[in-house]
Amino acid sequence: MRAAVMRSRRLVVADLPLPEPGPGEVLVKTLACGICGSDLHALKHAERFVEVSRRAGSAFVMDLSRDVVMGHEFCAEIVDHGAATSKTLPVGTRICSRPGLIRASGPLTVGYSNDTPGGYAEYMRLTEALLLEVPNGLPTEQAALTEPMAVGLHAVAKARLEPDDAPLVIGCGPVGLAVIAALRLSGARPIVAADFSSRRRDLAVALGADIVVDPAATTPWQSWREAAVWRDASRAPALPPWIAGPPLRPAVVFECVGVPGVLDQIMVAAPKGSRLVVVGVCMEPDTIYPMLGISKELNLQFVLGYTPDEFAATLRHIADGKIPTTPLITGKVGIEGVAGAFEALATPERHAKILVEPWRA
Amino acid sequence: MRAAVMRSRRLVVADLPLPEPGPGEVLVKTLACGICGSDLHALKHAERFVEVSRRAGSAFVMDLSRDVVMGHEFCAEIVDHGAATSKTLPVGTRICSRPGLIRASGPLTVGYSNDTPGGYAEYMRLTEALLLEVPNGLPTEQAALTEPMAVGLHAVAKARLEPDDAPLVIGCGPVGLAVIAALRLSGARPIVAADFSSRRRDLAVALGADIVVDPAATTPWQSWREAAVWRDASRAPALPPWIAGPPLRPAVVFECVGVPGVLDQIMVAAPKGSRLVVVGVCMEPDTIYPMLGISKELNLQFVLGYTPDEFAATLRHIADGKIPTTPLITGKVGIEGVAGAFEALATPERHAKILVEPWRA
Repeated sequence: MRAAVMRSRRLVVADLPLPEPGPGEVLVKTLACGICGSDLHALKHAERFVEVSRRAGSAFVMDLSRDVVMGHEFCAEIVDHGAATSKTLPVGTRICSRPGLIRASGPLTVGYSNDTPGGYAEYMRLTEALLLEVPNGLPTEQAALTEPMAVGLHAVAKARLEPDDAPLVIGCGPVGLAVIAALRLSGARPIVAADFSSRRRDLAVALGADIVVDPAATTPWQSWREAAVWRDASRAPALPPWIAGPPLRPAVVFECVGVPGVLDQIMVAAPKGSRLVVVGVCMEPDTIYPMLGISKELNLQFVLGYTPDEFAATLRHIADGKIPTTPLITGKVGIEGVAGAFEALATPERHAKILVEPWRA
Repeated sequence: MRAAVMRSRRLVVADLPLPEPGPGEVLVKTLACGICGSDLHALKHAERFVEVSRRAGSAFVMDLSRDVVMGHEFCAEIVDHGAATSKTLPVGTRICSRPGLIRASGPLTVGYSNDTPGGYAEYMRLTEALLLEVPNGLPTEQAALTEPMAVGLHAVAKARLEPDDAPLVIGCGPVGLAVIAALRLSGARPIVAADFSSRRRDLAVALGADIVVDPAATTPWQSWREAAVWRDASRAPALPPWIAGPPLRPAVVFECVGVPGVLDQIMVAAPKGSRLVVVGVCMEPDTIYPMLGISKELNLQFVLGYTPDEFAATLRHIADGKIPTTPLITGKVGIEGVAGAFEALATPERHAKILVEPWRA
């Protein structure tokens, strides 16, 4: 089968053997697979990616001297059932799945593994028990966004929002956009979102942001403060007379940039008692001033991935039209286009999500 | 009046004018005042202390070219009432107070201010509305420990412990010991606590730790893992077959060291989903690997101080014998002894809490 392979730190098109589904596994044809920012990072900073993954005890530990087929945001179609499968979903069913194989020997990542291909290949194998049928009528390209949008749903769930919390989303790449969509679902309003890219700010509005900010022009916190005033002043806590300005609702900040220094910037600017949800994946060491966190009693909740229930709920929300996904898809490529798409994605002005369609003519 | 004054980065004994109580304030005679680790830091790294305090928007911003009388952990006796006071507590009443003056112009810190003396002086002024009467029969030296012990009560409250949480206390200086005492009150057991100093480990046991660990001999996490096994195995969550060892209760780690690097060490070692309560005051920049937090979905709760209710509850708990304080007091000095006590406290083997008694003969 044809695949875009990470080999010697480059993406090349190669012919690989068809993967064999093991017991409890199915062979699937990849219909569409989104390119994730983590994939860009894994290609550009491969050694660092593996080193930090190992240090973090994560499953994303690859042998960089061997081939890896990335791609973990996919919609696929069942082609064949392996041994010990129930075949509840017949051949031809379109499915989504969390990107992992569950085996007796332990879990195996789909997308950052030397031992099983991800979605930048014509075929993958998946664990039957993880498959979710794509609801009738939901376009494949929208179903393929289940995985990245589930990240947003999970981040907002981990934020444990209270009715009075006022959210601020820093960074409107795919992660920030997923958070915005999930915030909109949660009812937390108004949603203030910041990004340097005007294209991404437009996408933020399309996904549900109420107020978008260009940090080059004004501080996101100024917009947040205007938005976070209690509308029902009778519910606001009393402030001592020496505190200037109106009382503000509690801040819940979603860090969706994942670049060193952003955490410190947020900790400097955040009001006392703010909660930070760290969704952006920063693979570098980062410097913080603990005293900032202490003097403001900040809370940092780091988050990763999603639960099985959140993944399934995301697919349903997309099918029900409650999570808009169409604006996110800014490009489509075949296997040959993967390397170019990785380059194009480095420019935030142009793209949000590029889908790889391995069977694209 | 006589006072130990921080002047030109040194502690000197000096004569200062008696402070004038303003409206709503009382003049008090300092009976005993504990030396806090933050005071040591403020003396040794004064510029850094002020710089970081300013950056953190905290109240501890001093003009180092002017005198400061430190000391914020005190028990005192009312000597005189200023204007506009209710005089509910008569002259001669022993009191504790949160270390701050509440004024129309804003709050003023007692202990890190150029404008009002702290407890290393014979007299202070305090806000009448903040005074708490020391219960009859409670020794002054124990009442003076209300402030540092309240820090532990607050840290444990902010940890929002669930019944199955298994605590680990890293560092058994005064902050760690206060956390241990508060954990004991909360009923979270067993309490595992780690410190390189055998003296401090003994104190940890005296304050309520069940298991103490010398990190030079073994990792605190090994002891924690043994302690955190579910005693009622039927309540433990099911683990997949490839996870070795028994399921463990959730970890709640109290960082009570406050030195760069400790946060990273804890983030490397902590199990998935651990909650870290950062109580140790690290004034330096610190390096963390966000990816560690992300891949384990760690939560960091930074904490500071205590609420008025927690402060009052701590004094009651001490009076009721529910928070042991006597083992903590390892030395007493007069005004002349303050500089020497600061030096002695640099050696954890010898001391926990040294009390300054300004009227000591």
